[in-house]
Amino acid sequence: MSHNTFGHLFRVTTWGESHGPAIGCVIDGCPPLIPLTEADIQGYLDKRKPGQSKFTTQRREPDQVKILSGVMVDDDGIQKTTGTPISLMIENTDQRSKDYSEIKERYRPGHADFTYDAKYGIRDYRGGGRSSARETAMRVAAGAVARKVVPGVQVRGALVQIGPHRINRDNWDWAEIDNNPFFCPDKEAAAFWADYLDGIRKKGSSIGAVIEVVADGVPVGLGAPIYAKLDQDIASLLMSINAVKGVEIGNGFEAAELTGEENADEMRLGANNQPVFLSNNAGGVLGGISSGEPVIARFAVKPTSSILTPRQSITKSGEEVDVMTKGRHDPCVGIRAVPVGEAMVACALADHYLRHRGQVG
Amino acid sequence: MSHNTFGHLFRVTTWGESHGPAIGCVIDGCPPLIPLTEADIQGYLDKRKPGQSKFTTQRREPDQVKILSGVMVDDDGIQKTTGTPISLMIENTDQRSKDYSEIKERYRPGHADFTYDAKYGIRDYRGGGRSSARETAMRVAAGAVARKVVPGVQVRGALVQIGPHRINRDNWDWAEIDNNPFFCPDKEAAAFWADYLDGIRKKGSSIGAVIEVVADGVPVGLGAPIYAKLDQDIASLLMSINAVKGVEIGNGFEAAELTGEENADEMRLGANNQPVFLSNNAGGVLGGISSGEPVIARFAVKPTSSILTPRQSITKSGEEVDVMTKGRHDPCVGIRAVPVGEAMVACALADHYLRHRGQVG
Amino acid sequence: MSHNTFGHLFRVTTWGESHGPAIGCVIDGCPPLIPLTEADIQGYLDKRKPGQSKFTTQRREPDQVKILSGVMVDDDGIQKTTGTPISLMIENTDQRSKDYSEIKERYRPGHADFTYDAKYGIRDYRGGGRSSARETAMRVAAGAVARKVVPGVQVRGALVQIGPHRINRDNWDWAEIDNNPFFCPDKEAAAFWADYLDGIRKKGSSIGAVIEVVADGVPVGLGAPIYAKLDQDIASLLMSINAVKGVEIGNGFEAAELTGEENADEMRLGANNQPVFLSNNAGGVLGGISSGEPVIARFAVKPTSSILTPRQSITKSGEEVDVMTKGRHDPCVGIRAVPVGEAMVACALADHYLRHRGQVG
Amino acid sequence: MSHNTFGHLFRVTTWGESHGPAIGCVIDGCPPLIPLTEADIQGYLDKRKPGQSKFTTQRREPDQVKILSGVMVDDDGIQKTTGTPISLMIENTDQRSKDYSEIKERYRPGHADFTYDAKYGIRDYRGGGRSSARETAMRVAAGAVARKVVPGVQVRGALVQIGPHRINRDNWDWAEIDNNPFFCPDKEAAAFWADYLDGIRKKGSSIGAVIEVVADGVPVGLGAPIYAKLDQDIASLLMSINAVKGVEIGNGFEAAELTGEENADEMRLGANNQPVFLSNNAGGVLGGISSGEPVIARFAVKPTSSILTPRQSITKSGEEVDVMTKGRHDPCVGIRAVPVGEAMVACALADHYLRHRGQVG
Repeated sequence: MSHNTFGHLFRVTTWGESHGPAIGCVIDGCPPLIPLTEADIQGYLDKRKPGQSKFTTQRREPDQVKILSGVMVDDDGIQKTTGTPISLMIENTDQRSKDYSEIKERYRPGHADFTYDAKYGIRDYRGGGRSSARETAMRVAAGAVARKVVPGVQVRGALVQIGPHRINRDNWDWAEIDNNPFFCPDKEAAAFWADYLDGIRKKGSSIGAVIEVVADGVPVGLGAPIYAKLDQDIASLLMSINAVKGVEIGNGFEAAELTGEENADEMRLGANNQPVFLSNNAGGVLGGISSGEPVIARFAVKPTSSILTPRQSITKSGEEVDVMTKGRHDPCVGIRAVPVGEAMVACALADHYLRHRGQVG
Repeated sequence: MSHNTFGHLFRVTTWGESHGPAIGCVIDGCPPLIPLTEADIQGYLDKRKPGQSKFTTQRREPDQVKILSGVMVDDDGIQKTTGTPISLMIENTDQRSKDYSEIKERYRPGHADFTYDAKYGIRDYRGGGRSSARETAMRVAAGAVARKVVPGVQVRGALVQIGPHRINRDNWDWAEIDNNPFFCPDKEAAAFWADYLDGIRKKGSSIGAVIEVVADGVPVGLGAPIYAKLDQDIASLLMSINAVKGVEIGNGFEAAELTGEENADEMRLGANNQPVFLSNNAGGVLGGISSGEPVIARFAVKPTSSILTPRQSITKSGEEVDVMTKGRHDPCVGIRAVPVGEAMVACALADHYLRHRGQVG
Repeated sequence: MSHNTFGHLFRVTTWGESHGPAIGCVIDGCPPLIPLTEADIQGYLDKRKPGQSKFTTQRREPDQVKILSGVMVDDDGIQKTTGTPISLMIENTDQRSKDYSEIKERYRPGHADFTYDAKYGIRDYRGGGRSSARETAMRVAAGAVARKVVPGVQVRGALVQIGPHRINRDNWDWAEIDNNPFFCPDKEAAAFWADYLDGIRKKGSSIGAVIEVVADGVPVGLGAPIYAKLDQDIASLLMSINAVKGVEIGNGFEAAELTGEENADEMRLGANNQPVFLSNNAGGVLGGISSGEPVIARFAVKPTSSILTPRQSITKSGEEVDVMTKGRHDPCVGIRAVPVGEAMVACALADHYLRHRGQVG
Repeated sequence: MSHNTFGHLFRVTTWGESHGPAIGCVIDGCPPLIPLTEADIQGYLDKRKPGQSKFTTQRREPDQVKILSGVMVDDDGIQKTTGTPISLMIENTDQRSKDYSEIKERYRPGHADFTYDAKYGIRDYRGGGRSSARETAMRVAAGAVARKVVPGVQVRGALVQIGPHRINRDNWDWAEIDNNPFFCPDKEAAAFWADYLDGIRKKGSSIGAVIEVVADGVPVGLGAPIYAKLDQDIASLLMSINAVKGVEIGNGFEAAELTGEENADEMRLGANNQPVFLSNNAGGVLGGISSGEPVIARFAVKPTSSILTPRQSITKSGEEVDVMTKGRHDPCVGIRAVPVGEAMVACALADHYLRHRGQVG
């Protein structure tokens, strides 16, 4: 079973492999009359782009997005969405004629090689096929459009943990995000990580990470009590990102250790007698529906499976081998997962914004 | 937006509130010719049933399930599914004529009261409407049918943490699950928890918990590389359970702290030259597709929001109040979430089993 | 493959067989705060109810609908939808202990007996299982709710042809619909049909029919240019009704015989400079989107397959037999299809009204 | 509401406007290991291609399809599907810099101009946007892939009526289809039509048509009793084609005029005691499920709305005008609808083949 679409009203279908001529996506259900240019999307893609520091893969893709449909320049010269499907495409330019003969036969531990072959009986070993992280470029592109659908929403992500090393949350400063190659909001942690990760990289090893995504300005009322909970759909999309092994909303697993008294987010009346929450353990979602507080989600990314140390494995034809993955790779794939996580949250919000408007608006 | 269906080929739609005449579900897409009686379902419902110990709500519902459609007795006298929708219903019998005037106006912290009212403008305050945990009875019922769809699969859940107290995994014994009111696989932990939770209960407090679900006998190949990952759909369904704030697959958030060398599940050839994995950090899912190893998922449940200690809140009409929830409630809702989590995993497996059979079978 | 749900935002799932304990449906996605009682639905069910004249089956079902969920009495004493799933149920009361041994083995020509057995390997021969027209009662019930979703819309159906005998469209008078047992808007035709159909009935024969459904007050803009055309979804739902073999929108097949000049619906400005169409060959839908003109759909219903004249067939076990269907049946199933067709159009309009409001509203 | 996807397991999403850089589609759910090259698709596209005779638009598009993803050359040098999304694209090459100022303001009768503007508030007047028949190229491309999914199936279409002139069914010869520019199976009718349509063309007029699609070799058991009837899904897809106003299955509207005795398809045992039907009024579908007989569907296409004779209309800004459509157009769009209708039937069959295999296989 292949299934490459997500969303109910704001629907995104992605396609393409890293070693085909291009990758792309179709965004269906975007409302009309939203200003949209390639530059709006390109900015987010550039954040995710590989090869920007020694901590991300040296594969160099310019990743220039093209809008192939769904927009039109109006009488005022402004390019806007027309309400029809928006087709986005990025041509693959960096397809080195590499020797894949080893990967073709050998199942790399931690990769989808074995399960892919077992399922489909055919596998695009050149770069991982659909399991390649390259697919996430289209998620970022779709997320750029999604951000424009919900008025006033701001979705930002940060790396909050590399290996066992967490940030100090008291140091959190969104302005720091762009000052280091980790999307790290804690200046001190970023400095420490630079050394730590360089050590990992030099050993040809890799390490896991945790990303936190925060959405401010989410209207009250998005989501549903059951089976289309806002947090459920966010969890689903975050878990669909390559290498993700865990997802939390609000205080997440920590909630298991708290009493009801500690965990309750109390309410008072604030300015203009508007309801205010005195804490946000819930992460902005109560009973599946947004509360107006910032929506907070975290996800854990496992260490890159491609490492220099040989690991035991088997071949397609049933022989025992040792596998060592040479070539370019990220010591911490979690870094580049930050803009991807942002995009997934943005898409979930756009979908639920339109659903809410349709049925309860 | 209301949305009360999950699944793509094995689809479940639930309906009903705890204070209406009944709750129920429709299971659509179940294959024909599967033996199915009410007793097959009732056994699982009885596990979830409230009022079985002092640690679960004293609301007493016999929870007798009725099959209203989709089955037929064949020539051999065996009742089997016909491939048509299976309608299940449980009548609500314990609807005490309680005074809801307080709850009607006051937003209980941690509950969906505020967001529900903000979204819909109308709220069934009698027992929480669709946000009531009573809905989970129908998940368990659907799960009982789902278990029969995948040949040879066994799905079992266990409580592995209450508050800060985790089980000792070395003591894990599935046979212990039925020997204590916690679905706890560690005899010693269960004994400790009994005292600990009794203290919580007597104070009118509550505590969170973590549940682990293990599915053995899952065939290789269920799932998809993207947007219908087996682990994604499991995460989605677990996160849709009331009060769940976090989900993990395999080693989950721990993966963030590991190196690629530590995290890799190495492979060798076993008996009959069959592939074997030497570890299962991945939790039985690689690249979104089942590997044949046990599928392992964990989820965190927040503490029951209904507690005796007053919490600050506001009313529907905009006044500040203190809210204290009297009446029956569970000190740890996580306990009753165990069979619900099992059911969600079983449903995800049934859906993907049918999808795999259709497209790659 | 069983699939018992239709609609994207206004979703209806039906369940049940005519010989089980009940039939029912779940309506998911209905907006909150719409006044709704059982009486609102019962009126439409009574129109469809069998046994009302000698021209419809003598099976007597009181067809009393119960609302099991999704409504609540508000502070003003008015029962309203809550935005959660509306579960409707009708108990089956007229299950005579009939001898089905013949039907069990013999494939009735024109019925689904042969294909059902070939597909599922099991068939509820008692009354046709899911292929029974009894299922259409739930469509009518869902349609009653759908009518309340689109403000100001009025959906009415009429029988316009029985066998070769068409109404005279110049005689069309909606007020006549309730004055004859055919839902016929032409008084003279109704009188003629009464004799004609009585002849058919006495011979134990049956005859086909054509139904026309007209929706007035449909807002401009419902539908989509492609794959969710309003007329496409109406055609899909009408074709899903038992025994329907053809569907037309506007002038339908007649359009094949016209020139572009004849077929064009010209436009002028009317009162208040509002656009008016000078004709409605399009049947209220242009390019898949409603134009504000009445939406007009027609569908052909084949003659009842159950007749007294023996027809050649085979048995399940592979023997040649003659089949003659004794017992109660309708000489023209098209009559009772009128309220069903209305309901299908109403459901399509409700779904597209909500979709339009969500994405372009 | 925009919605540009159809199918449940074999899903097709189309995108693009005739005046953008390209049009395309994504086919998701195609099973792996099916040999597939661009040439397999190109052959069907060439049948639909405009400019092949004086009876179809002179717009000249080479319509060269490119496969951008989802295939891979295996070890034997054969390009096969991989089970991942197949992205197809056709670049638009014939975008004359035409003056659209008139069309921009004026609503062409019979076109979607008025409803499009009313719905979206923005309209791609250059060539009709998503309402352009150019979109149907991607349906044909998807149909070419769908044909390969169902083993042994053959789907063929024919024009059976132009204006009031029907073919003589006794003359039906599939071999004639390629001998005339009408896909006409009746040699004599084709000769007559050539003169007739030339007259229409010279007057700048247009005329409607009826197309019949026949699928041979359809396995027994595809479809469902309700809401996923094979004939329902075929009707839905045929009605989604531009300008289609009516759809019939089997004898269609003629069934309304028949008695039960006349309409019944009787059964006998044939060679090897296999069930045979003595007629096929049902068009290969009984109770929504394929019977093994040829699946037969017909659809009516209205006359091209673009004609030289001025028609009354209004402008976007609310003025009364006369509209005359200059430039290239087809005198009978029904001709080019033949391969499109074939493709839609092929796609419905592929989808139901996979669904059947998943749930009842």
